[in-house]
Amino acid sequence: MLEQYKNKRVLITGGMGMIGSSIAHRLVELGAEVRIVDARIKPYGANDFNIKDVKEKINLYQADIRDKEKMTPLVEWSEIIFNLAGQVSHNDSIKNPFLDTEINYIGHLNVLEIAKKVNPLIKILYSGTRMQYGKVEKIPVAEDHPQRPLSPYALNKSAAENLYLFYHRIYRIPVVIFRITNPYGPRGQVKHHKYCIVNWFTRLAIENKGITIFGDGSQVRDYLFIDNLTDAFVKAGIEPAADGEVFNLGSGEGTTFKEMAKTIVDIAGSGSITHVPWPDHYINVETGDFVADISKIKKIIDWKPEISLKEGIRRTVEFYRKYMKFYL
Amino acid sequence: MLEQYKNKRVLITGGMGMIGSSIAHRLVELGAEVRIVDARIKPYGANDFNIKDVKEKINLYQADIRDKEKMTPLVEWSEIIFNLAGQVSHNDSIKNPFLDTEINYIGHLNVLEIAKKVNPLIKILYSGTRMQYGKVEKIPVAEDHPQRPLSPYALNKSAAENLYLFYHRIYRIPVVIFRITNPYGPRGQVKHHKYCIVNWFTRLAIENKGITIFGDGSQVRDYLFIDNLTDAFVKAGIEPAADGEVFNLGSGEGTTFKEMAKTIVDIAGSGSITHVPWPDHYINVETGDFVADISKIKKIIDWKPEISLKEGIRRTVEFYRKYMKFYL
Repeated sequence: MLEQYKNKRVLITGGMGMIGSSIAHRLVELGAEVRIVDARIKPYGANDFNIKDVKEKINLYQADIRDKEKMTPLVEWSEIIFNLAGQVSHNDSIKNPFLDTEINYIGHLNVLEIAKKVNPLIKILYSGTRMQYGKVEKIPVAEDHPQRPLSPYALNKSAAENLYLFYHRIYRIPVVIFRITNPYGPRGQVKHHKYCIVNWFTRLAIENKGITIFGDGSQVRDYLFIDNLTDAFVKAGIEPAADGEVFNLGSGEGTTFKEMAKTIVDIAGSGSITHVPWPDHYINVETGDFVADISKIKKIIDWKPEISLKEGIRRTVEFYRKYMKFYL
Repeated sequence: MLEQYKNKRVLITGGMGMIGSSIAHRLVELGAEVRIVDARIKPYGANDFNIKDVKEKINLYQADIRDKEKMTPLVEWSEIIFNLAGQVSHNDSIKNPFLDTEINYIGHLNVLEIAKKVNPLIKILYSGTRMQYGKVEKIPVAEDHPQRPLSPYALNKSAAENLYLFYHRIYRIPVVIFRITNPYGPRGQVKHHKYCIVNWFTRLAIENKGITIFGDGSQVRDYLFIDNLTDAFVKAGIEPAADGEVFNLGSGEGTTFKEMAKTIVDIAGSGSITHVPWPDHYINVETGDFVADISKIKKIIDWKPEISLKEGIRRTVEFYRKYMKFYL
């Protein structure tokens, strides 16, 4: 089935970030014609090293999804868009909700409006977040769980999701929406703890530093290895049954924060764990335990998370042992 | 209870429109200190005649809710905001979703961010729309009916509603959200048919012209007379039990389009009705029959729609017979 990607014209926005560049690698392997768009906005995830190995096989454009003029020919050219560009920090969105709205809502509106006008049959895949759910009522969390976001980031992800569904409903643009749990793995950022916490802890462990856990670390999360995530996006990109659907995308398994950190330290063979009390300003944004119910995606697209947390962390540690300097 | 408005500092954005100016009249009567903000953007509802009678008793500011500098001192001054400013046309939003988003989403984000920073105890009332529901599954429509908007206007009203709920949830700003059915009455616009259809038909009838109905006119709507609407806003403004709540605001009664038109022609004693087929581009935005379930608002605030459709139309005809020239 993945042979359909051969010579397919695919655009990846935010293509120099962890998710976009991982999808790019996969699609290049599958023979797709790949164009990457990235605005390279600091401090988001764009990293030259992420596309080093595919650079000769793709075309790279520096453009912001808010830029109508630059985006129009790119959208016109494409058959599929992995529309992954975004402001990615939950915490930064609280400080500047306007910037988050500009990028994560209006930027996506821009791409959808262009598609409607110049290329309405184009398929567009969108990356939402499990943060859209806010405080969790019961786990595992299915797609029909209420959405009560706790940050402008999550709020705009929700609003943009509705935008995608709207363009599907009214203009019949085939869209696929993923609400992603906590992704981690090669090509993610390791500079700070604001997002991609597994990657951050991996760095601390490799550097034999202390890993700080808020509270007792018993909060449960659903960590999704990048290759499992990539696999789902790539499959959904050519699966018509996914059109117009919203999917949780996670491992479907709960892991305590403590256990995640311990696994990293064990596999790295270095680093140590210390516990500190929850800072006040984190209380509001804590969602409670989270595990995604992934039965819908398993049913509709032929996908399951193949790589375990242990193996995912092993590969992550291995990657950053080799390439850490490109991510500092 | 309404005595609480005496000397209360109240800000009304979009205060020169039908809803804002009607609330202003009511609050002036109740002894509130009223400031009106209006951006006077053409072709929205601002009309000098709407505030003629209260002009000496209020303070008027020309400002856009997107304008941080102008809005900050006004938000700081207020105890209650009726935040009614907005792009008001469903159809225009389809042509320019960016402008709609700018005003109806980011404008409201701006007011909420200012409130959070300079006046977090302020109460803010917001006017959403029954259009947020999109195609109706069953009537009467309660607040938990799915929202599948059919225009950027409705989509942004939904997104902004979530914004209000977010600022309530996280920053404890007391907000009240109304999803308003089809409002009509004195001070509404009569220039075109794009919104406020009862007013438009009233004009046609008074001018003894033909009223055009798409299809057989059997589609059911919930028409809300402006004084009933005003009454609900004013009561909710001082009712703590309404804080953080979303309410349908309608008459709770279904009336066919045909019957509404006939009532206008009968009361006016002029005008005539003709039927034409539905234009193609309307099919997508037709929601099906709509009647609001208003049991929630009746239970939580001491309100019910006191004025019947017949009496409401009678007063509307009377108003425009006298004052039509100020609305042309």
